Amino acid sequence: MLRRAVELFNRQGYDATSMGDLARELGLSKSAIYHHVDSKEQLLSAALDEALDELTAAVEQAVDPASTDPASTRLEDVVHRSVRILVTHRPAVTLLLRVRGNSEVELAALRRRRKLDEDLAGLVAEAAEEGAVRSDIAPELTSRLLFGLVNSLVEWYRPDGPVDVDTLARSIAVLAFDGLRVPPAG
Amino acid sequence: MLRRAVELFNRQGYDATSMGDLARELGLSKSAIYHHVDSKEQLLSAALDEALDELTAAVEQAVDPASTDPASTRLEDVVHRSVRILVTHRPAVTLLLRVRGNSEVELAALRRRRKLDEDLAGLVAEAAEEGAVRSDIAPELTSRLLFGLVNSLVEWYRPDGPVDVDTLARSIAVLAFDGLRVPPAG
Repeated sequence: MLRRAVELFNRQGYDATSMGDLARELGLSKSAIYHHVDSKEQLLSAALDEALDELTAAVEQAVDPASTDPASTRLEDVVHRSVRILVTHRPAVTLLLRVRGNSEVELAALRRRRKLDEDLAGLVAEAAEEGAVRSDIAPELTSRLLFGLVNSLVEWYRPDGPVDVDTLARSIAVLAFDGLRVPPAG
Repeated sequence: MLRRAVELFNRQGYDATSMGDLARELGLSKSAIYHHVDSKEQLLSAALDEALDELTAAVEQAVDPASTDPASTRLEDVVHRSVRILVTHRPAVTLLLRVRGNSEVELAALRRRRKLDEDLAGLVAEAAEEGAVRSDIAPELTSRLLFGLVNSLVEWYRPDGPVDVDTLARSIAVLAFDGLRVPPAG
């Protein structure tokens, strides 16, 4: 039910979706829906937690102070892992990325997102201090662009399309870390 | 009025916004609104055309067969120009990027977007054939990622923030074409 609810929210917008719409989508009566969930907001909250719990686990591992890997390696790893999370939890992540802060549940999700953004910007700064990642772009901007690139895949990627998730993750990492340009020979 | 309408559509969703909401937002009566526009869809159509006309002009210049510039140069140019269009026309482009095809106006906009995507993928393929852009990622995927990166800036970029548009355009091009990695010395 959560998955179907999230797909409906993504298709017609969370605010524009009523519990009546959801009941029709599921072929249930409204009272049957309310037997399972208290409110539309409870479904929103569960979906946002699904996305945020996965992303938080990935970012916490990447910024773990006990890690002995260089920051640049942990940054590449978290890019790969984020791509996999976005593909596996695409409906929930799509909903998360569209949250605008219209309720306390949404504001709480935005606070958790902001913490992830700060941790990732800190990791980029650490990788730049190591000299492994370019420092002529500010770490906050690099982080915005890098995870903007990752997040953009929810807009077009389909797991049943021609690009498998390994190719997708590798291509995003190659574009971001190595760039598209082939240096002139000579 | 178009600008304020588009900002309201982006804030609360086009489908969830009524002409009554728009009248309240503008401090006008509904009849005053209808004196200027026939329908909500007319405002949507005008905003989508604003975004699409600008993007189409940029892409048509980039794929102009009469151009003597290499495809890779034209690709970098259209990235820079797209960033500027997204910043200058951010509300209209944001609305365009959220269109899901719920009406004939939206379907027509999606058809125009698809033509732009195809032209850009063709330009990437041409740059790869020249040997100037890497060919180990399929041109369609490269194009999706590159313009996904560009489009993602509508989610966070604010013209009154710390990053000016020149820095933004240059940073996106550097990330995409040169990559973030600093090669190990030696």
